[in-house]
Amino acid sequence: MEVTENRQFLQHEADLLLEIIMNRRDVRGNRFTDEPVEEDKINQILQAAVNAPSVGFSQPWQFVIIKSKKTKEQVKATFNVENEKASKLFKDEKQQEYNRLKLEGIFEAPLNIAIFYTDVDKPVLGQTSMTEVGLYSVVCAIQNMWLMARALNIGMGWVSIIDPEKVKQILKAPEGNKLVGYFCLGYTNGFLPQPELELLKWENRKKVSDLIFNETY
Amino acid sequence: MEVTENRQFLQHEADLLLEIIMNRRDVRGNRFTDEPVEEDKINQILQAAVNAPSVGFSQPWQFVIIKSKKTKEQVKATFNVENEKASKLFKDEKQQEYNRLKLEGIFEAPLNIAIFYTDVDKPVLGQTSMTEVGLYSVVCAIQNMWLMARALNIGMGWVSIIDPEKVKQILKAPEGNKLVGYFCLGYTNGFLPQPELELLKWENRKKVSDLIFNETY
Repeated sequence: MEVTENRQFLQHEADLLLEIIMNRRDVRGNRFTDEPVEEDKINQILQAAVNAPSVGFSQPWQFVIIKSKKTKEQVKATFNVENEKASKLFKDEKQQEYNRLKLEGIFEAPLNIAIFYTDVDKPVLGQTSMTEVGLYSVVCAIQNMWLMARALNIGMGWVSIIDPEKVKQILKAPEGNKLVGYFCLGYTNGFLPQPELELLKWENRKKVSDLIFNETY
Repeated sequence: MEVTENRQFLQHEADLLLEIIMNRRDVRGNRFTDEPVEEDKINQILQAAVNAPSVGFSQPWQFVIIKSKKTKEQVKATFNVENEKASKLFKDEKQQEYNRLKLEGIFEAPLNIAIFYTDVDKPVLGQTSMTEVGLYSVVCAIQNMWLMARALNIGMGWVSIIDPEKVKQILKAPEGNKLVGYFCLGYTNGFLPQPELELLKWENRKKVSDLIFNETY
């Protein structure tokens, strides 16, 4: 795609972006189909990723594309351990509700992607006072991918209930890399009209006016 | 905006998203105009933020809208201190080049927004093994804002060369909050066709094929 200098977008184009944002969902194993994701679609999603902002134009992201059952089995094993520990942190009814939720789609999704931050061995412009911004660049890439996947009608879900060090070992990642996120991607049998945890009243949606402060708190 | 269950997007809609992604820039003080950003536009940008994914639907984000010269002066003071320290980390020609760059637009941009993570005082679903994912949710919101600002032809720039604790004090943020990012927003006299640091050859663009690994490293 060519970039036109100083392209002026129209309101209906901004509206479409908002529509994609509002239709994006965290998709889990109860909604994936096994239809493979085409290489061309994977490339479009990765194209969105590498055009994210990065501090000092450091582009500190790397992507491991996972399709094999063997790798998925190892990742699923760390999910199982961490999820059992997590369940115990919730009490009574909340725990029962927790246990009923399907919180990953490692096997169900045809495609898994692990996304790493790679450490840079020289000072990075903009990363000198707040060193975490390198990791944040990778998260910006992830959000671009999530929106692009949704625009391609592909579901994506973030699996955070894992031991990142275990996943690093499984994927033989270099020492200086940090796992930022592990994702399941695939076509779905439908996107929910609201986030699942909102529909189930696990948490309520916050009022926007409660989140905004003027000048100071 | 209404969400239609299971909205199917078309390829030209995904292409428009990629176009917005590829035209987004980190905008700094040499490119902002003083034209105020309309309230309606600010609301559209915040709407994009609060519809980002958040771990366990925790929505752990808060936004401080800054327009006053007094607040900006205090933030600019911490930038000046941190930027002087940062400059010393670069050597010779790279340092001269660093010093020539305009790395913030605190005064020039009519609108500054500080974005905080707010700690939650109960277990958050999905945040039990990788506790940093709460911060990452806030970064997803930031990337949504950046794209929405661009789609509204509004520039946005990330100011990371600041002492986050100083900014917390200036904005009287609660103890349990963490500054994730400080941003300058405003109309611009033009968006560059490529990231400025790429145009200036501060860093080279990485080859996508070098960033992708199959199954393991």
